[in-house]
Amino acid sequence: MRLKCPICGKVYEEPVQRCECGEPVEFELLKGEPYIGKSVWERFYDFWPVEPALEFSLGEGDTPLVKSKLSEELGVRLYLKNETVNPTWSFKDRGTFLAMSYAPKAGYKAVGTVSTGNMAASVSAYASRFGLDAKILVSESASNEKLKAVSVYGGDVIRVKGDYGRLYFESLKLGESLGIYFINSDNPFRVEGYKGIAFEIVEEVTPDYVLIPTSSGGLFRGVAKGFIELKESGLIEELPTLVAVQAEGCSPICRAFEEGKERIERFENPKTIAKAIANPYPPSGNAVLKLMRDFGWLCAAVSDDEIVEAQKKLAGEGLFVQPASATGIAALKKLVESGVIPEGAKVVSILTGSGLKTLSHAEGGRIRECPLEGLENCLR
Amino acid sequence: MRLKCPICGKVYEEPVQRCECGEPVEFELLKGEPYIGKSVWERFYDFWPVEPALEFSLGEGDTPLVKSKLSEELGVRLYLKNETVNPTWSFKDRGTFLAMSYAPKAGYKAVGTVSTGNMAASVSAYASRFGLDAKILVSESASNEKLKAVSVYGGDVIRVKGDYGRLYFESLKLGESLGIYFINSDNPFRVEGYKGIAFEIVEEVTPDYVLIPTSSGGLFRGVAKGFIELKESGLIEELPTLVAVQAEGCSPICRAFEEGKERIERFENPKTIAKAIANPYPPSGNAVLKLMRDFGWLCAAVSDDEIVEAQKKLAGEGLFVQPASATGIAALKKLVESGVIPEGAKVVSILTGSGLKTLSHAEGGRIRECPLEGLENCLR
Repeated sequence: MRLKCPICGKVYEEPVQRCECGEPVEFELLKGEPYIGKSVWERFYDFWPVEPALEFSLGEGDTPLVKSKLSEELGVRLYLKNETVNPTWSFKDRGTFLAMSYAPKAGYKAVGTVSTGNMAASVSAYASRFGLDAKILVSESASNEKLKAVSVYGGDVIRVKGDYGRLYFESLKLGESLGIYFINSDNPFRVEGYKGIAFEIVEEVTPDYVLIPTSSGGLFRGVAKGFIELKESGLIEELPTLVAVQAEGCSPICRAFEEGKERIERFENPKTIAKAIANPYPPSGNAVLKLMRDFGWLCAAVSDDEIVEAQKKLAGEGLFVQPASATGIAALKKLVESGVIPEGAKVVSILTGSGLKTLSHAEGGRIRECPLEGLENCLR
Repeated sequence: MRLKCPICGKVYEEPVQRCECGEPVEFELLKGEPYIGKSVWERFYDFWPVEPALEFSLGEGDTPLVKSKLSEELGVRLYLKNETVNPTWSFKDRGTFLAMSYAPKAGYKAVGTVSTGNMAASVSAYASRFGLDAKILVSESASNEKLKAVSVYGGDVIRVKGDYGRLYFESLKLGESLGIYFINSDNPFRVEGYKGIAFEIVEEVTPDYVLIPTSSGGLFRGVAKGFIELKESGLIEELPTLVAVQAEGCSPICRAFEEGKERIERFENPKTIAKAIANPYPPSGNAVLKLMRDFGWLCAAVSDDEIVEAQKKLAGEGLFVQPASATGIAALKKLVESGVIPEGAKVVSILTGSGLKTLSHAEGGRIRECPLEGLENCLR
């Protein structure tokens, strides 16, 4: 196993969590060929840095690529990668499963994460599945309702009072000294797990653009690495253009990108309904910036109003997603209208998590009342 | 298309909703062979009474069969068919999709259903996807929270004041006169859609027992018909023993079965936390009774306490299900302990819907508090 820091280039022979320079590390490029198999773990067996522990799989990955009815309205050939049908109903399960395949092999008996949402539930669930202790560190402000869907799996859920940003780095430090493997948002194995999204997409279409809701940057880096490895393996001819999508109310990566900076800066007073992508100081921000520069990729920020509109559009074709997942469609509309994405382009948007996760904040539709005796009139 | 009443035997040449005798009708047995294909709709193409409208598919079906860690504790080889990862997070999507594949071909521009839970969300979602109007009739007592996950898809949600049991039959009558195709719990196409569960199971294991949470009886009938057609087609040698599982607080089918009756009777004052299977007068109850008699199958009722315990066991291996979905595991424990299911048997339990659907009623785990400065002590 060889890992490298994408920013300073330092190489590590064992899976550290982050480079000494403070940036995330990543596994060197893996190359290979596809096999016949039921799961993405089997079909792309050559591409994982650790043997997937299939006996503990919950069937994560291998999600549907849905042909979108919005294609006509938007003037592109649009496909939706529906990650809301993973075992804990978000894309996080792919990365959690792969990181969890590593942890016990390295001797860890406990795992952890810092999250209040999708990742917390995912790590809690898979820790139970793998028979590992789980330490789920959540912010002071996380609602009890939200934490129910996390604690139900049996992990040790700890509400931590104090700076949430510091908690990320503190958890890695303490984890190392206490023997707890922290699988945070851009853990190197987690990022590798997300490559499966790219692999499954190219099994069905060759996209020109891929829209990726981006917060910590772990998902973006994983999908990017997946496509790059496919190209390096000669399995695709061209890389698609990846688009990192953020909420205007918390868009540190897009801001730095537009200003031509090499480093992100903390986004003060973040405010957006897309809570799942509201990280004001993303730990993989600089690595994402570098990818976008190196490959000529794009960043797009969308407003809460645009997100709500896109969420409704998706529900209108049967897919109820959390606000963060609707950002791709919100961005697509703008990018097509401004001519950045040309008409007829093949576009994939990643739907990251289920709308049921944020149900209490969702806007429902109209509900009428009707007596049984007058039902005929109500139905006309 | 030929349909037959399983109770009185009357044959229909077009897809009526119910027999003149009041019982549900069903399609005659279909036979065939499997093909290579990505979706269950393609692989078992011979077995559907209508061409699946794949251009509108949301990727329903093809759910994971998870090897359960509970096998050791329970003394059987247990597999969990995880239907919570369907597009609207319940098994209903399979039946909804197939029925919706038929409705527009028969000239319907509107569809409907009578439900307050999983089926309401499913029909609402697929109606939007297929571009059909939807009339979703819900009971007076349905909570606003629950209806949000239904109305979000854009269907016309109508809270009907009056007897909920009568509403089922009233909807079919009005639907016929007004040109609205009602896809209720045991609509014949809906039942056919559930056969895919049996087909996918035998692609991976040959079960001795299959545990099926049973309310209206539509799911039980569908899974049964799937296995019967596999046997008639020479694709399996023996039928598994199917077990209809109900909640003790609402078990009209098990009660009639134990009393040796041919007809179910209304279960007065139903009371169970497993709301999704709390139909006190199931419209397919008599048809399920007949299947159990004809094939020597089983019925099992479980208490709310047993359901809650089973729900925790499932969460303990990473699968958070709604209470109704945990009834299979609750029943399995009893059936193994009493010797009805022998040690070492291959058992499949169907997990029908996501725990997120009933989150506000779920019992969460313990949540601790800890200051960031004292985190090391909290983690030890």
